[in-house]
Amino acid sequence: MKNITILGSTGSIGVNALNILRNIELDFKISYLTANHNADVMIDQCKEFHPKKAIMIDEKSAEKVYQEVSKEGIEVLVGRESLLNIVKDQTVDLVLNSLVGASGMEPTYNAINAGVDVALANKESLVVAGNIITKAMEESGAKLYPVDSEHSAIWQCLIGESMDDIEKIILTGSGGPFRTRELNTFNDIKVSDALKHPNWDMGKKITIDSATMMNKGLEVIEAYWLFNLSYPDIEIIIHPQSIVHSMVQFNDGSIKAQMGVPDMKIPIQYALTYPNHIKAPWERLEFSKLNELTFESPDLDKFPCIKLAYDSLEKLGSAPAVLTMANDYCVYKFLDEKIKFIDIPRIIKEALDRHSWVKEPNLKYLNELNTWSKNFVDSFV
Amino acid sequence: MKNITILGSTGSIGVNALNILRNIELDFKISYLTANHNADVMIDQCKEFHPKKAIMIDEKSAEKVYQEVSKEGIEVLVGRESLLNIVKDQTVDLVLNSLVGASGMEPTYNAINAGVDVALANKESLVVAGNIITKAMEESGAKLYPVDSEHSAIWQCLIGESMDDIEKIILTGSGGPFRTRELNTFNDIKVSDALKHPNWDMGKKITIDSATMMNKGLEVIEAYWLFNLSYPDIEIIIHPQSIVHSMVQFNDGSIKAQMGVPDMKIPIQYALTYPNHIKAPWERLEFSKLNELTFESPDLDKFPCIKLAYDSLEKLGSAPAVLTMANDYCVYKFLDEKIKFIDIPRIIKEALDRHSWVKEPNLKYLNELNTWSKNFVDSFV
Repeated sequence: MKNITILGSTGSIGVNALNILRNIELDFKISYLTANHNADVMIDQCKEFHPKKAIMIDEKSAEKVYQEVSKEGIEVLVGRESLLNIVKDQTVDLVLNSLVGASGMEPTYNAINAGVDVALANKESLVVAGNIITKAMEESGAKLYPVDSEHSAIWQCLIGESMDDIEKIILTGSGGPFRTRELNTFNDIKVSDALKHPNWDMGKKITIDSATMMNKGLEVIEAYWLFNLSYPDIEIIIHPQSIVHSMVQFNDGSIKAQMGVPDMKIPIQYALTYPNHIKAPWERLEFSKLNELTFESPDLDKFPCIKLAYDSLEKLGSAPAVLTMANDYCVYKFLDEKIKFIDIPRIIKEALDRHSWVKEPNLKYLNELNTWSKNFVDSFV
Repeated sequence: MKNITILGSTGSIGVNALNILRNIELDFKISYLTANHNADVMIDQCKEFHPKKAIMIDEKSAEKVYQEVSKEGIEVLVGRESLLNIVKDQTVDLVLNSLVGASGMEPTYNAINAGVDVALANKESLVVAGNIITKAMEESGAKLYPVDSEHSAIWQCLIGESMDDIEKIILTGSGGPFRTRELNTFNDIKVSDALKHPNWDMGKKITIDSATMMNKGLEVIEAYWLFNLSYPDIEIIIHPQSIVHSMVQFNDGSIKAQMGVPDMKIPIQYALTYPNHIKAPWERLEFSKLNELTFESPDLDKFPCIKLAYDSLEKLGSAPAVLTMANDYCVYKFLDEKIKFIDIPRIIKEALDRHSWVKEPNLKYLNELNTWSKNFVDSFV
């Protein structure tokens, strides 16, 4: 029996995860479900999966959920403090963290620190606090299982292999909706343009990150921490069809790739069922019906966020944290139509240059840096 | 220190293997080298690698080698019996069997039976005597390491995985030189046409097998025995660029592929150095410079050998043996311009239909079947 907590259960990854658990033969029990404010979906999930407790960040939504599920013996908690507490419950075997943005870091840290394994869909956790979380893992013995399709691919390619045999990691990316758009039209990009991802059906924040390709940059940093790599060994290759989800090149030149239809169900399931590939009814890739697969180098002029991410990885310390925090706020401002698409990398670059860099940021400093980043981005609007 | 024997050291795989050993940091010693009649190359190899013994099948060549290398303390043996004996030497850690055709089977059996691991480039061994060799492996504990690029790919994809999690094996094939040739011109195919393989630089026999696609059929049968699979779980997909060397699909729909430049050095090296990917200077695949990768179903009208192979796998018993033995002799007759290209599958089909099928062929029967196959093919010329 696997006791599972899902942080962000009403979002894209959370809904997918519950759909997977509904469809495969895994002996599991849901311990906790958490969401921000989507009461209706949370009520349905509670009625179907009967968690011990449901946590809503928003107070009014919590009340609504309480009205419907308390009679079923499900406790309803409210607020971020509750979320930060329930992840420490050591009766839980796996916390699926599908929170969005830098605020997902503390729940990851708290779970790992308590010795609870985390299936990590929140890439910002490691980008913000890779040093802190890695240290906590060493102390508690808890493990991180990647959920991102790219990192899941790398993880799957590394099963049974020695880390000493790795020559480099090849992260693939679709190139997002603006891969073929002319750079001189980037000034006119609208929110609706940026929300049209060619291959993947994801939440809004990550879809914008795909459009700026900051997503790929954050993935490079996440891979650095997840797989304990040195920075020049991580390469980005654009693969518009999103069939090859990432690759590992070994010292003899042999390359392993993980492939499949572009569907988050496979990587989410693998994180839930590792080390097994449990029988599942998802769509299969049919090679005879595939169009051609192509590969190209990323265009760093169009997508300066990639270079900013590599720069921050070279600096390390607090640089990756301020990169992703500033990115979070910039994306929200862009979604609110307060800044332009091309302002996103500009503001992030300023934030990187102007924040007070520290070598080993602690949680307190990271919280301050988050507030600083919010104010900094606000000052541009 | 790894003691290595190379059967067929002057052929394409053997020469490649010695080149690899020359280039990587592996602590090894060559125990035996064997060849048919290429005395000059054998003499050079002996002078460089100092095997305990050199074996030449051809007597005159043996004399020539003896003249040159006996003064260096290298013993020279002659004939197939010597070859069948030296593979039993239990001080050897690994026999690389790169003999061509069905005659490679007995050396594989003898090594395995003596408890010596075999790196198997001779796919006919398992096609002819899968049941006998598998049984010998169970009894002696010796292992088979695939050298074929396809089977090496599958092997690499299975490292660290559970066999229970496999949904199917996807064997890729380039489609050979006649993939796009019109079927109604197959009657005119010349030996020189069939020897032009688009991607791989290999020996003559295997190059003709690629042109008829019997090679892919034999690989299906080899995969069946190597990985202990049931027959419908092995699929052939044509991939003309030969970059993806084969794949494994798991029960959750996840697919792992092994990729690289089309160069036998990687799979040969892996069989020599397993489980490590030792640093090597071979050409790397550059994704940004790759042309598109494409996939299509094989054309069974153009390449009836594929269907014959699947048929023989369904029948099992002596069927795969007579398939590959008849194929051996047909290919030599075609190379001698005694039969046409399109006669190859016709004669093999007749041999399959007309031989006396037995359920569990033993070595004696297989030897008789080999003679029968030779005579049967001769009767068509």
